Amino acid sequence: MRHFKKTDFPVSQIRRFLEPGPIVLVSSAWKGQTNIMTMGWHTVMEFSPSLVGCVIAASNHSFDLVKGSRECVINVPTLELARTAVGIGNCSGRDVDKFKEFKLTPVKATKVKAPLIAECYASLECRLHDARLVNTYNFFIFEVVKAHAATSPRNPTTIHYRGDGAFMVAGRSISLRRLFRPDYL
Amino acid sequence: MRHFKKTDFPVSQIRRFLEPGPIVLVSSAWKGQTNIMTMGWHTVMEFSPSLVGCVIAASNHSFDLVKGSRECVINVPTLELARTAVGIGNCSGRDVDKFKEFKLTPVKATKVKAPLIAECYASLECRLHDARLVNTYNFFIFEVVKAHAATSPRNPTTIHYRGDGAFMVAGRSISLRRLFRPDYL
Repeated sequence: MRHFKKTDFPVSQIRRFLEPGPIVLVSSAWKGQTNIMTMGWHTVMEFSPSLVGCVIAASNHSFDLVKGSRECVINVPTLELARTAVGIGNCSGRDVDKFKEFKLTPVKATKVKAPLIAECYASLECRLHDARLVNTYNFFIFEVVKAHAATSPRNPTTIHYRGDGAFMVAGRSISLRRLFRPDYL
Repeated sequence: MRHFKKTDFPVSQIRRFLEPGPIVLVSSAWKGQTNIMTMGWHTVMEFSPSLVGCVIAASNHSFDLVKGSRECVINVPTLELARTAVGIGNCSGRDVDKFKEFKLTPVKATKVKAPLIAECYASLECRLHDARLVNTYNFFIFEVVKAHAATSPRNPTTIHYRGDGAFMVAGRSISLRRLFRPDYL
């Protein structure tokens, strides 16, 4: 499986990867264990600090690792990893070492202990910023403290979940830049 | 502009429209005023009750209408409305009647006072469920209390914002249903 060559990316601009709404792979590490989960419920919340909110259900093994470590990495996979993403969602890190099982390559992060996933297009190192809604909604608000992204291809072929096993694959790109008020870009 | 013929849709399944991450048009009504805003920062948070979280910046006129009325409608536009969505984002409801200006058709909702937009593929009637994070992050948690969706085409050509005037247009649909654990579908 292809490893994306990634370079530093400005954390204030990570909307580029998350706002279109792809499923992501959340990697985590705590007390000697690592894990990966597939997640589709996330939103950008602020540019600076760079905030992302997401739901990690308490039944997931990743919930314990993320809540315990107060960190994670949000990785953006492309179409090549669609079957892998489904497989990751089908099993639990309580039973399986997902990096080994799915032949994914952990890469040391810069600011958090959770590993990046080499096979993903972009990887966002996150620290827990606000846990106020964790108990009520399993909703974590993270600050992206470091971002890594591939520069090629320019627009990744991300995968977007509709439920019931159906995905939308990212299609063509259009620019309406000329229509925007310059200060609203 | 085409009016989508919509029928009732189960509120617990509205992930189908929002989880892929399209930009949406939020319509609102309060004290005799209506408004529309373009929004890209939203996430599904729960199936039942059907919860959606989203950021409506306090600088928007819609913030006042939504906060005041504690209601809105989240409408899902398709590619035909891409230029309209940008135009709606370029101006303020303080200065412009957006339904008139953009030739959009308000339709009476069932459970809220905010109007549905006839030209959108799906419309979700929402009531404010939790305002705890409004002051800190402009983050509203809504319950979808009634959903209306077109049945044709089966998969809407939604538009997904990458920032800087660039959009991704929804591409092909794939089903990986056979790979899922049946109880995880």
